[in-house]
Amino acid sequence: MKAYVYGTKRELPEGFEEFADATHTAIVSIDMHQGHLADSPDCPCPAPRAREIVAPIDLFHNEARALGVPVVHVKTVLRKGGVDDVRGIKSAWRLTFPLYVGDIPNADEHAIEGSRWTELVTRVAPTDVVVASKKRLSVFYPTDLDFLLRNMNVRTVVLNGGFTDCCVLNAAFDASNHNYRVVVVRDLVRGTNEEMEEAALKIVSLHLGLVMDSADLLDAWRSVLTAHAAE
Amino acid sequence: MKAYVYGTKRELPEGFEEFADATHTAIVSIDMHQGHLADSPDCPCPAPRAREIVAPIDLFHNEARALGVPVVHVKTVLRKGGVDDVRGIKSAWRLTFPLYVGDIPNADEHAIEGSRWTELVTRVAPTDVVVASKKRLSVFYPTDLDFLLRNMNVRTVVLNGGFTDCCVLNAAFDASNHNYRVVVVRDLVRGTNEEMEEAALKIVSLHLGLVMDSADLLDAWRSVLTAHAAE
Amino acid sequence: MKAYVYGTKRELPEGFEEFADATHTAIVSIDMHQGHLADSPDCPCPAPRAREIVAPIDLFHNEARALGVPVVHVKTVLRKGGVDDVRGIKSAWRLTFPLYVGDIPNADEHAIEGSRWTELVTRVAPTDVVVASKKRLSVFYPTDLDFLLRNMNVRTVVLNGGFTDCCVLNAAFDASNHNYRVVVVRDLVRGTNEEMEEAALKIVSLHLGLVMDSADLLDAWRSVLTAHAAE
Amino acid sequence: MKAYVYGTKRELPEGFEEFADATHTAIVSIDMHQGHLADSPDCPCPAPRAREIVAPIDLFHNEARALGVPVVHVKTVLRKGGVDDVRGIKSAWRLTFPLYVGDIPNADEHAIEGSRWTELVTRVAPTDVVVASKKRLSVFYPTDLDFLLRNMNVRTVVLNGGFTDCCVLNAAFDASNHNYRVVVVRDLVRGTNEEMEEAALKIVSLHLGLVMDSADLLDAWRSVLTAHAAE
Repeated sequence: MKAYVYGTKRELPEGFEEFADATHTAIVSIDMHQGHLADSPDCPCPAPRAREIVAPIDLFHNEARALGVPVVHVKTVLRKGGVDDVRGIKSAWRLTFPLYVGDIPNADEHAIEGSRWTELVTRVAPTDVVVASKKRLSVFYPTDLDFLLRNMNVRTVVLNGGFTDCCVLNAAFDASNHNYRVVVVRDLVRGTNEEMEEAALKIVSLHLGLVMDSADLLDAWRSVLTAHAAE
Repeated sequence: MKAYVYGTKRELPEGFEEFADATHTAIVSIDMHQGHLADSPDCPCPAPRAREIVAPIDLFHNEARALGVPVVHVKTVLRKGGVDDVRGIKSAWRLTFPLYVGDIPNADEHAIEGSRWTELVTRVAPTDVVVASKKRLSVFYPTDLDFLLRNMNVRTVVLNGGFTDCCVLNAAFDASNHNYRVVVVRDLVRGTNEEMEEAALKIVSLHLGLVMDSADLLDAWRSVLTAHAAE
Repeated sequence: MKAYVYGTKRELPEGFEEFADATHTAIVSIDMHQGHLADSPDCPCPAPRAREIVAPIDLFHNEARALGVPVVHVKTVLRKGGVDDVRGIKSAWRLTFPLYVGDIPNADEHAIEGSRWTELVTRVAPTDVVVASKKRLSVFYPTDLDFLLRNMNVRTVVLNGGFTDCCVLNAAFDASNHNYRVVVVRDLVRGTNEEMEEAALKIVSLHLGLVMDSADLLDAWRSVLTAHAAE
Repeated sequence: MKAYVYGTKRELPEGFEEFADATHTAIVSIDMHQGHLADSPDCPCPAPRAREIVAPIDLFHNEARALGVPVVHVKTVLRKGGVDDVRGIKSAWRLTFPLYVGDIPNADEHAIEGSRWTELVTRVAPTDVVVASKKRLSVFYPTDLDFLLRNMNVRTVVLNGGFTDCCVLNAAFDASNHNYRVVVVRDLVRGTNEEMEEAALKIVSLHLGLVMDSADLLDAWRSVLTAHAAE
């Protein structure tokens, strides 16, 4: 099995089998919605670098579903009126991110319930599961994701989606703290910029889990499933 | 008020007053214990770069206490026998970190209850508070830190300690998700290496909170407290 | 201020002011939906005794809104297909409750997303807040209620709704553990039967918070608000 | 398998096998410490009715250990100085319980770290596990119990200890919400008084899990283990 260790692809030694155990795995796809991906001036929290991974994520999800690996889409949805963010305790990024990228004109509309900004751009199949209660950066707190994964008997999560150095990295921290094995799919995540993307993947590889190419993960899953079937 | 935005020190605009509100702030000092800092071959999880910040952290804590800002020390303590880690579901870092740094000889002794590896190296004053139930990377889950901070009426946490790109970064994610304002003290944290340290601080500055020098934070606290006293 | 102590209404001594501080209070109204209240044979989790409190709860909420106390409706919503309950790890009540009441014919349809069984029967005003992610008995875990209440700067929760000895009692335990002051409104809750209802209210009064009549609570709120206005 | 349904002992139908699966079970023994059990006037939170179950619990734990069922002792430990309770946000019981039982002279000393009031009266065997971070009524929040049980691969919890209608009932709610199967051992719990004890056990039997005699549970465990061994 091949993974990136501090940016370099290597063959892993024994001991990482759980990470590729397709029978106890779920994909967690993070915030691939219009609020990040819309190519329009009123996009409330633009992540333009992630637009190019919409199609590859859809393809990967198709392969995963065919192998019986469930897909969980997590997306941010904030209540109208702002009670849980802009008129409550504001998300930190609303204060800090503009220091770097400048003013974000429509940021208050980010993820508002019922608006187009909560629509997923990646395909949601009828068998997929949606967690639509993400409020800040974490996919775990304060959502029911951990509760859900336990009901699904999942032990390994495979992460893809936008903002490698933000929500994806946060998900990797949370999932590993909650005793899940973590795989971040290198070709299916994008960061704020290339530097932060590479750095976040290095952090994952040091402390949190495996950084793998989707093709290598699919290969590993197929080997495991073939071995299972042969038993 | 001055902070580092993506690595560059700048004067901040208005809107960041809460971050320096010394009257609702606690310092959270992370894992400054022998298990990371001991300069001996059996140190179970060495963080040698952090040894140089022991004395500066102690000085900073003295100043903070004098200003009435409480100090909370969080440290990892694992049960003897390994039920909550090496004989349960192993921490991810035990699998991934050796891929980068090589074998860690005494890692199984890391943070074992009752051992010297749980002893804090930084000074604990009688009025300080200790959270001794950290189990993985997070200072929040599964500990009582959030519960404690709420009892203390804290709204802003100031982070220092070892592993900027690991437990400190994780704490910054968790704290911001739990609606605390976050300050990471740049001169009082150390990372796996310089590259990861700089990257983690950039990630904090983009999405999670402020990266400040301790001298600037102390100045800001003093201004706020003087203003309060004058009211 | 008057409250029921172990079933007997008494005048309270000093020290309970926080419980009636209307300026830091939210009402949490629990599961007043068709799945419990519909008077039809396919009602998936019947709580017929609670039908009589729909109108009184609506009246109470009107008074509360007029005084500026926010109303939060919490309701159970389970995903289609049963991934988070009947095809995951089944709710305990599905196993135990039929031992007492006999078979519940349509129980698998309970709270299914998009069905009529998730429709609130009590009125939801435009300024109310809805938490639609309750999965088991608790209104806190795994929902975002605590996160929400903190954003709303709430310190006291006032509980009403169905199943005094079940979800209401659970909410009183959770809220008190999360450091909220708790008031259960005696005339606006109903239990499995009269015996369990009285017992649950006694348990609340011993360990968890105040059991009050709605009229007494409204009086207490008005006194507090008048005092505030006079300041 | 026999259990009490609303106070009446009955033979259960099929479908409750998980509750007696000794191979995925842990006992959670709650707060059997001097702070509740000491027969002295300065006992800070007296639960005199529970003194009579110390010896029976010890015997039950011996039998369980012999069958390979782990014992987890959970106890309340509060920080010196009161930061997490009497000088923070006071536990609700400190306000409400005296309304019923009258003033509790030494209540401020309850569970203070390092004092005799945190000493367990029941026997702790070397293989037992201790959770010493309970802060309020819940054994789950804000402790690491759920984290620990997951590391132990536990799916069923068996509860014993003091205050059937308080911490034991709370534990039953929490455990069932966290997807554990729950057994409350009828002869190994004691309530505030007989009325509350019976009521709490009825509530458990309706909504949360099984109420069983220890002898019946031991029998059921032995049958399961014999069947396993025969496989």
